[in-house]
Amino acid sequence: MDYQTTVEKWGVWEVSCAGTAEGNPFTQQWIRAVFTGKSETVEADGFYDGDGIYKVRFMPSFTGEYRFCLRASFLEQEQEGSFWVTEPAADNHGPVRVANTWHFAYEDGVPYYSVGTTCYVWELQSDERIAQTLASLRESGFNKIRFCIFPKHYDYNLGEPRSYPYEGTPMDSGVLTRENFIQYTGKTQGNHWDFERFCTAHFAHIEACVEKLQGIGVEADLILMHPYDRWGFSQMNEAQDDLYIKYVVARFAAYRNVWWSLANEYDLMEHKSIRDWERYAAIICQKDPYRHLRSIHNCIAFYDHARPWVTHCSIQRQDLYKSAELVSEWRMRYRKPVVLDEIAYEGNIEHGWGNITGEEMVRRFWEAACRGGYPGHGETFLADDDVLWWSHGGVLHGESWKRVRFLLRILGETPGLGLAEKHRSWDEVCAVPESFTEAERTGYHLFYYSFMRPSFRKFYFDDVYAYRVEVIDTWNMTIEEAGVFTGSFRVELPGRQYMAVRVQKA
Amino acid sequence: MDYQTTVEKWGVWEVSCAGTAEGNPFTQQWIRAVFTGKSETVEADGFYDGDGIYKVRFMPSFTGEYRFCLRASFLEQEQEGSFWVTEPAADNHGPVRVANTWHFAYEDGVPYYSVGTTCYVWELQSDERIAQTLASLRESGFNKIRFCIFPKHYDYNLGEPRSYPYEGTPMDSGVLTRENFIQYTGKTQGNHWDFERFCTAHFAHIEACVEKLQGIGVEADLILMHPYDRWGFSQMNEAQDDLYIKYVVARFAAYRNVWWSLANEYDLMEHKSIRDWERYAAIICQKDPYRHLRSIHNCIAFYDHARPWVTHCSIQRQDLYKSAELVSEWRMRYRKPVVLDEIAYEGNIEHGWGNITGEEMVRRFWEAACRGGYPGHGETFLADDDVLWWSHGGVLHGESWKRVRFLLRILGETPGLGLAEKHRSWDEVCAVPESFTEAERTGYHLFYYSFMRPSFRKFYFDDVYAYRVEVIDTWNMTIEEAGVFTGSFRVELPGRQYMAVRVQKA
Repeated sequence: MDYQTTVEKWGVWEVSCAGTAEGNPFTQQWIRAVFTGKSETVEADGFYDGDGIYKVRFMPSFTGEYRFCLRASFLEQEQEGSFWVTEPAADNHGPVRVANTWHFAYEDGVPYYSVGTTCYVWELQSDERIAQTLASLRESGFNKIRFCIFPKHYDYNLGEPRSYPYEGTPMDSGVLTRENFIQYTGKTQGNHWDFERFCTAHFAHIEACVEKLQGIGVEADLILMHPYDRWGFSQMNEAQDDLYIKYVVARFAAYRNVWWSLANEYDLMEHKSIRDWERYAAIICQKDPYRHLRSIHNCIAFYDHARPWVTHCSIQRQDLYKSAELVSEWRMRYRKPVVLDEIAYEGNIEHGWGNITGEEMVRRFWEAACRGGYPGHGETFLADDDVLWWSHGGVLHGESWKRVRFLLRILGETPGLGLAEKHRSWDEVCAVPESFTEAERTGYHLFYYSFMRPSFRKFYFDDVYAYRVEVIDTWNMTIEEAGVFTGSFRVELPGRQYMAVRVQKA
Repeated sequence: MDYQTTVEKWGVWEVSCAGTAEGNPFTQQWIRAVFTGKSETVEADGFYDGDGIYKVRFMPSFTGEYRFCLRASFLEQEQEGSFWVTEPAADNHGPVRVANTWHFAYEDGVPYYSVGTTCYVWELQSDERIAQTLASLRESGFNKIRFCIFPKHYDYNLGEPRSYPYEGTPMDSGVLTRENFIQYTGKTQGNHWDFERFCTAHFAHIEACVEKLQGIGVEADLILMHPYDRWGFSQMNEAQDDLYIKYVVARFAAYRNVWWSLANEYDLMEHKSIRDWERYAAIICQKDPYRHLRSIHNCIAFYDHARPWVTHCSIQRQDLYKSAELVSEWRMRYRKPVVLDEIAYEGNIEHGWGNITGEEMVRRFWEAACRGGYPGHGETFLADDDVLWWSHGGVLHGESWKRVRFLLRILGETPGLGLAEKHRSWDEVCAVPESFTEAERTGYHLFYYSFMRPSFRKFYFDDVYAYRVEVIDTWNMTIEEAGVFTGSFRVELPGRQYMAVRVQKA
């Protein structure tokens, strides 16, 4: 038994334990431990990590001494030990939680304004590409990234991943071209996998990527299943699926920046039913001691986000024209945070989901944010090497990502936790603090004019307070003082698109 | 009795008749005539035109000899006469009719693709401004203009009109400012009108304007009532309203380019009920022998466009974001032509209905047109002299109007009469000829990509025919040959917004 004697709060503590490698340790053996500190008792399943080594991971939520008691099918008697949990490092705020009904905060109370991006299989690319992606993420403002544990088979994604989740061999992909790839979706002949033997290196590599994301303050929205498959990973049976879900939870749950996304486009997975999704969710709820955020993402039909296990809506827009504009409706319907995990991607590929302008992407970000929703980004620019950010990561080519960083700054300056839409005039979006107390105290209003080009706007709040007004150019990323006003006043605007006005009590 | 002995088909024939000027000729006298040609018998009401002169107008729909029989309250016996109807001039195609359920054609069968503009009271401006507006219209492609018979009181419209529809004196407008104008809406104190005595010069002037529009091929969409009033014209009683409607029909119906728009924003007219609108419509149906097009335009709630007297939907968009995109839904709902008489105006004023970009305006035009709807334009640019096209006419300052002319050219080249949306792929708008026979014969498809930027698109129609493909840049107004293809093919696109592809059998 080998384990750390100290770990920071919300860090990953791990114990390794030698056991048998005979038979199939993934299905025939088990290991788990109970952790007891002054303020919590937690039971966590461990997992087999190959070469006769078993591990249990734990994320402590409190400081001070913890004791643990470890049992395993291959151990004749339970093992005990203890370790010390230290204060978290300055950049460690704990896992992200739902806060204030429609918003998020880190467990230490620091607000978390989610602005995500999507790189479906960035972690299954070469080391160089992965390093490039991490550097791009560090420079950007994105604080969440969606990606898959399983490799992806789709347009612009015909190559083989760096590793597979199972022992075995894939079908011969030499016959694949951009013209015939669609025929291979759903056909899994030629693959030879043992769905009861995980390739531990595949998971260990993804864990390393999750840790690197944690190091740069990015949440890892782990997609457990998806339909874009030629290997058969979307067509396993119930027992195999459950084994997979449990294995993933045992390995990843101790990483504070993990979110569970049950699926990308669950409704395109024809071999899965609602019963299956509910069963996966039940396993996660039972096995994840830390209650990480849980969601499920649609292609066409929304999943019922009102289900108790769904912590937040993960939404792909249903309409070609309106997406972020519908956030207030969805917030009312589900009374949960609304995360827009696909509102089309900035780019120029042939598909309508991947060829909007940077301006339109940024507009959708502001439309969502000013309604108290959380927008997500992606890029799909044609490239000679077929490396598209949306799937492979790499370098950001678009115009929107810098403006997302600017939006994040604006969001970081809102009073209280989170924004909500206030209906004031039909031809603007008006955001106020979600908390009525904060709204009253600060008089904070953020007006957004989208594609409209007012040359001025008139305002009236009251005759009592003086209001400081700033004019924000959301595209050119400037903030200009417009003055301090009381009573009725008029604010001059440049008659351009994408302007905002921020008002606060002086 | 004084009358023309010849008139062209669909021209205005007129008879003048001296009568009494005593009492109130508008209410106490009447005049009407029955016209009989080989193919039609028409009864038309006349009107009092001041100075003891009464007139009856007639628009013949057939060539050859017509006889008429005139009666009036002030004539002891009926008068008779005849005149000759000649072939119409080359640019005279007759009145516009509904054709092919969702479209329009002139009575001679020439297709009419409506692309309108709005200048609410252009005809009540100075002679110089009116001449300027007519010159602008002639240069543009607009073939319909919406305007009001009553003057307009609204933001940027605080001046007095050149004339009033009634005898009397208006309130003192010297006290009006942009800040207080809203207080005068609904208040009519200080006006002194005789709502039973029309100012005939006001109407004669508007008729001259309608004739000038006719001369440049522009339909006059006459707005009979509207809520933007400080004179009390929106608050007359039933008898006064009915007198007005009858007077308007008697004066204007013989002009072939007249359309009846019962109201601009009927639902803001708080002194009128549905019963009133239905009564006005009944009067028009009864009194207009030529069955000119009839519609009624909303602010918020649509009128029930399914009403039998409504010939086409006159729609103001109900949603800030989606307007032209909903044309197919409205076509299905009402099974009538869908005319979008307000989808926001190109400009930079403070109001959201008047500050979209030229690009967005043109995008809405194409979204509407490719669904077989008929979009309308307007301009609201701030100007030192407060002359805004949307109300006053004058000079066009925007970027969209030239592109409307280009769209009209494309529409003029469609086979058959009118386009309809074909559902092919979710990320495009695909227009085909409304007529299945024409669609089959020509293989015509018009694909529009809106704000999307595909770098190429793939097509397949069949393995039999060769298709000629053109790439259309709807903003830069270019049409480029892309080649002739059979079977599956790929068309290269520039990866810019606002592109279209036109396909036809070679």
